[in-house]
Amino acid sequence: MSDKQKSGLVVTAHPGDFVWRAGGAIALHAKMGYRMKIVCFSFGERGESQGAWKQPGMTMEQCKAGRRAEAEAAAAILGAEIEFFDSGDYPLNFTDGMMDRLIDIYREVNPSFVLTHAVRDPYNVDHPKASAIAQEARIVAQAAGHKPGPSGVTYTAPQVFQFEPHQPEQCDFKPNRILNITEVWDTKWKAFQELPAQRHLWDYYERVALNRGMQGGRNSGKAMKYGEAYQTIFPDAVEVLA
Amino acid sequence: MSDKQKSGLVVTAHPGDFVWRAGGAIALHAKMGYRMKIVCFSFGERGESQGAWKQPGMTMEQCKAGRRAEAEAAAAILGAEIEFFDSGDYPLNFTDGMMDRLIDIYREVNPSFVLTHAVRDPYNVDHPKASAIAQEARIVAQAAGHKPGPSGVTYTAPQVFQFEPHQPEQCDFKPNRILNITEVWDTKWKAFQELPAQRHLWDYYERVALNRGMQGGRNSGKAMKYGEAYQTIFPDAVEVLA
Amino acid sequence: MSDKQKSGLVVTAHPGDFVWRAGGAIALHAKMGYRMKIVCFSFGERGESQGAWKQPGMTMEQCKAGRRAEAEAAAAILGAEIEFFDSGDYPLNFTDGMMDRLIDIYREVNPSFVLTHAVRDPYNVDHPKASAIAQEARIVAQAAGHKPGPSGVTYTAPQVFQFEPHQPEQCDFKPNRILNITEVWDTKWKAFQELPAQRHLWDYYERVALNRGMQGGRNSGKAMKYGEAYQTIFPDAVEVLA
Amino acid sequence: MSDKQKSGLVVTAHPGDFVWRAGGAIALHAKMGYRMKIVCFSFGERGESQGAWKQPGMTMEQCKAGRRAEAEAAAAILGAEIEFFDSGDYPLNFTDGMMDRLIDIYREVNPSFVLTHAVRDPYNVDHPKASAIAQEARIVAQAAGHKPGPSGVTYTAPQVFQFEPHQPEQCDFKPNRILNITEVWDTKWKAFQELPAQRHLWDYYERVALNRGMQGGRNSGKAMKYGEAYQTIFPDAVEVLA
Amino acid sequence: MSDKQKSGLVVTAHPGDFVWRAGGAIALHAKMGYRMKIVCFSFGERGESQGAWKQPGMTMEQCKAGRRAEAEAAAAILGAEIEFFDSGDYPLNFTDGMMDRLIDIYREVNPSFVLTHAVRDPYNVDHPKASAIAQEARIVAQAAGHKPGPSGVTYTAPQVFQFEPHQPEQCDFKPNRILNITEVWDTKWKAFQELPAQRHLWDYYERVALNRGMQGGRNSGKAMKYGEAYQTIFPDAVEVLA
Amino acid sequence: MSDKQKSGLVVTAHPGDFVWRAGGAIALHAKMGYRMKIVCFSFGERGESQGAWKQPGMTMEQCKAGRRAEAEAAAAILGAEIEFFDSGDYPLNFTDGMMDRLIDIYREVNPSFVLTHAVRDPYNVDHPKASAIAQEARIVAQAAGHKPGPSGVTYTAPQVFQFEPHQPEQCDFKPNRILNITEVWDTKWKAFQELPAQRHLWDYYERVALNRGMQGGRNSGKAMKYGEAYQTIFPDAVEVLA
Repeated sequence: MSDKQKSGLVVTAHPGDFVWRAGGAIALHAKMGYRMKIVCFSFGERGESQGAWKQPGMTMEQCKAGRRAEAEAAAAILGAEIEFFDSGDYPLNFTDGMMDRLIDIYREVNPSFVLTHAVRDPYNVDHPKASAIAQEARIVAQAAGHKPGPSGVTYTAPQVFQFEPHQPEQCDFKPNRILNITEVWDTKWKAFQELPAQRHLWDYYERVALNRGMQGGRNSGKAMKYGEAYQTIFPDAVEVLA
Repeated sequence: MSDKQKSGLVVTAHPGDFVWRAGGAIALHAKMGYRMKIVCFSFGERGESQGAWKQPGMTMEQCKAGRRAEAEAAAAILGAEIEFFDSGDYPLNFTDGMMDRLIDIYREVNPSFVLTHAVRDPYNVDHPKASAIAQEARIVAQAAGHKPGPSGVTYTAPQVFQFEPHQPEQCDFKPNRILNITEVWDTKWKAFQELPAQRHLWDYYERVALNRGMQGGRNSGKAMKYGEAYQTIFPDAVEVLA
Repeated sequence: MSDKQKSGLVVTAHPGDFVWRAGGAIALHAKMGYRMKIVCFSFGERGESQGAWKQPGMTMEQCKAGRRAEAEAAAAILGAEIEFFDSGDYPLNFTDGMMDRLIDIYREVNPSFVLTHAVRDPYNVDHPKASAIAQEARIVAQAAGHKPGPSGVTYTAPQVFQFEPHQPEQCDFKPNRILNITEVWDTKWKAFQELPAQRHLWDYYERVALNRGMQGGRNSGKAMKYGEAYQTIFPDAVEVLA
Repeated sequence: MSDKQKSGLVVTAHPGDFVWRAGGAIALHAKMGYRMKIVCFSFGERGESQGAWKQPGMTMEQCKAGRRAEAEAAAAILGAEIEFFDSGDYPLNFTDGMMDRLIDIYREVNPSFVLTHAVRDPYNVDHPKASAIAQEARIVAQAAGHKPGPSGVTYTAPQVFQFEPHQPEQCDFKPNRILNITEVWDTKWKAFQELPAQRHLWDYYERVALNRGMQGGRNSGKAMKYGEAYQTIFPDAVEVLA
Repeated sequence: MSDKQKSGLVVTAHPGDFVWRAGGAIALHAKMGYRMKIVCFSFGERGESQGAWKQPGMTMEQCKAGRRAEAEAAAAILGAEIEFFDSGDYPLNFTDGMMDRLIDIYREVNPSFVLTHAVRDPYNVDHPKASAIAQEARIVAQAAGHKPGPSGVTYTAPQVFQFEPHQPEQCDFKPNRILNITEVWDTKWKAFQELPAQRHLWDYYERVALNRGMQGGRNSGKAMKYGEAYQTIFPDAVEVLA
Repeated sequence: MSDKQKSGLVVTAHPGDFVWRAGGAIALHAKMGYRMKIVCFSFGERGESQGAWKQPGMTMEQCKAGRRAEAEAAAAILGAEIEFFDSGDYPLNFTDGMMDRLIDIYREVNPSFVLTHAVRDPYNVDHPKASAIAQEARIVAQAAGHKPGPSGVTYTAPQVFQFEPHQPEQCDFKPNRILNITEVWDTKWKAFQELPAQRHLWDYYERVALNRGMQGGRNSGKAMKYGEAYQTIFPDAVEVLA
């Protein structure tokens, strides 16, 4: 694997999710040369576009187009590809065809890690569902009998990192990794600016990053200015402890 | 820190614990050049010497001497220093003086990681107590007002890895690291042979190592023959995800 | 909000549920002037009508009509409106149309609180499903893009109170509110009498109410004769602690 | 019930599951005269037939036929009936008709116990789904209004025993029963031999059985050579404690 | 073991505990011929004698004597021996000598089961402490090096059954056994009458017994009038599942 | 109770704790007329005075005096009484005499609520110990036989609110109350300024307050600027749900 480009996959329900919760990891790994791919199921058009719907005459297509443009701009800033499934939101209407496509993406990208939602979130039905879908596709991509072919499948199921939900304790989120995103903070902040309708969240997530950074420093004894918190699902196989 | 020798600290209640549960990690890091230091509170003389007490005329001093000799031989094979506190077992009678010494050891060794018992174990009162002591000393060693001196304290509190208890699920043990100990398995097995009275456990823990190895391979997609399972207590501050 | 009538919404899978588990809360808030509305998904016709099915010649329609009559009578005694979805039971066959209607109800009633089943119940598949549906509708009702209209949406997602399942510990139910229902106990008991086929449960739930009452008194230091236990899902935003 | 033949039901997603995880319980109770019936939802044709798909020209039908033959041979050795639902795997495509059949089987077999998958398994989406289906059918079989008939229903919902998943701690599996399978170990081992493509798992599960056996002995003070671990879902009603 | 009298040990902090929470199990096993021994650490003289302290001129010795007399009478009715440690209560002041005596009792009684408090109880500091002591003594009694003697130790550590706390959910109590105490209910009720100062608890615990009985019946499909709920700590090694 | 002054009790291990974690609640209830009393076990002289120990020639007495002065000034700003136990820190050396005094304080203050540390904190041994002590004293204060007197005891054990630890998820802290402290934020911020050595924490805890405030607003639908998070231990007995 050493001479291949490494990659990471991000699976989210709505556009804002990958910016607020995983923008640092995306920018950081992109900067390190990873291929970063975001799969964004919906445009957040019904449930996460309160601003848009206050505009007179707004239509669903306009709303979706607006959110898509923002998300594409943010992904570009972070250095990632983005693919939309247009699944609808609140709730996600995830079809068999979308699952089939997502499995193909897992095999094609063959990521070193997946970033997705926490498995529980009582505030948002789309988040745990997207997390479950990300995990199901990750598993089915391993099945030798799924689209068996002459070349065989070289895919390996990667570690899953749950990113931080809005109210972490209520989602039983208990981070076991704090990623140092200091060197890409400016990029993450720049990506925020593509989401002008959620201006109040810019500051909220800057505070989250600063406080996670201070926690990261407390856990390691080495200062960290900005951090992002993650929780893995599987044990890591390691060659050294620390 | 890069030009300093790295080190690891192992804190156990009884001699067998560091052999069965952490022998691979000790041997592996010793081989990598880490200074490995074991603090063993008791000789397991009351609660873990069933064989000895079947011998007619056995005394407490004889029993302790025998267990000490075994443990020293096993530690030597694994490549570690060992220090006994002679705290007694079943239960541990841990004094303030022992705590003071343990704190000094933390500061002196300044380890990159600590290995100790799981925080719960309904089968053994000494194990969770030893774990709690290891954690208390780790914390107090940070206190600037504990033995303040001219040079200041450069100690940083390390990550704590709980090693695998005998019946892991009953201890709420959920491993999040599987360490590949394949290259030091022979050393671990050789250390087993210093504990002849527990011959039946040699095979038990070989099976544990083989099964943890297979699990390690399943989690990473890369074969692992022998493994040791660990569970961390704190988040890791990291610079890359995977 | 002060000059508007307050309201509460109850979402249950079967008719008996709102009587045994939430009858006190319904009667109490109705008495205080709240508009209380019950949405009852099924008539419990398949899974909770053992008595009916012992009668020779019983048909599904007869069974449903009987359970509906009982439930309407009980709701009337408690002072609540009731709406049936006729979803079927064991399992619930909940359609998109029903979800749409439930979301409308949330917006129309705009309740201060929702009462529904616990999120887990290994004895009954309909209960956790009804709870999940109640929560999904509560969330989607917030979505500005769901049926956007000229007047905007004034709905606020309310706190969710899980009511007590039949075997609470097995459902991981851990109450954090005990509601004093002493002053409406007679009304709750009267509602029991509309469910003559479950005579044995009258006494069971009287004992539950008496024991929860004694627990309520122990927790507050103020005597409580009859109580109902609830567990909230979300934090409460408060202006004073106690 | 004393003069009736007792019975047990096993509900699994794939063929290997009942061999590795429950083969001892099946053989033991069969030997004691219980009617043992296995319901196997799929042939594991997509997700658990890596070996088959390495053979050139393999087709889905061939793969299924091969896995069926193996499973039938293994079931015969264990002394059990087996019924396949051909639901597909990765994921299970479980239809209403299959649920109807499974409910009938519960009523017909009227088992003293059910063996099925753990309720959680992050490695395999089919396992928790099969467990949930087994539990739903167990519950609906109690419903008097489900296929009501002249003779009434005499079925009683049995205890559910979750069998051991591949990586038990990751599935939150905490065994509370260790079944002594020593006297049928040879039979279980013989059944393994019907699964030649998974030769490496023979040894893995022999190690599991030996280690569970030693744990069983530690918990009871009575030696046990081979054991199988189970976790119940419901309390047991008992006439004596121990 | 078949020709030896079986025995059970009950370890409680205060006198009322064994009556309300375990009186049925004590009476039932005594009736079956088990030697039943109760160790009661304190007389509940400070924390559970509110009635006594309302009497003018009450002294500690009077209070203790009164509680002792009640407890001895209740134990006699239940068919059990009772031994008091006079440890004090609120909090227990448990000495090394008491621990030594308790370990001797474990070895002498060699019980098939131990009944004690739940491991957590936020309402009462003595209960979890008594539970922890009961478990520590149970473990140390296994240590070959504790009072080693010519005859060796034949003691086997028994299963621990936690009995039901006053507010079970708040103590994370999740019963996995419901013992049918119907045939000794009259005896348990008669024992209640030796505790006249707690008249209000007679009815409370009668309701608990009736409701646990109904739950027992629901879990087994076999009617149970009065039940007592227990939660085990260790897995059971078994020869048959159900 | 209506014509009596209400009161609240705060029990902390070190001086900073009541400022960062509970300063808003203290100031708010003081402003509402509650008597607010802080019991601060230590001066944080060993473990939480890193700044002081960097000063040449610092002595323990100087350090304690400095921290006492800061804490008294902060308490005065918040509107609270403060009493120090001088128990030492890292670890707390809590004597029987201190427990006796704390029980007296519970009876004398008879608080409506207690604020103290979370029951778990792997970063700090003093915090969970202080929490356990606060709970033990709260319980013993109820014991009629503890210092029985002519007038009887009118004390009622209050609800316990755990305040927010530094790394909440690692302490299994799951808030169920968010207190609106907006109107006293200025006071809390002013109290911060009495702790100049921890300047970096001022901003950290301002960010915590702003983010908890936003979460409070999300949970209630009513804007909240600054919040403090709490988790209760006991159920609340209530007369209305919402």
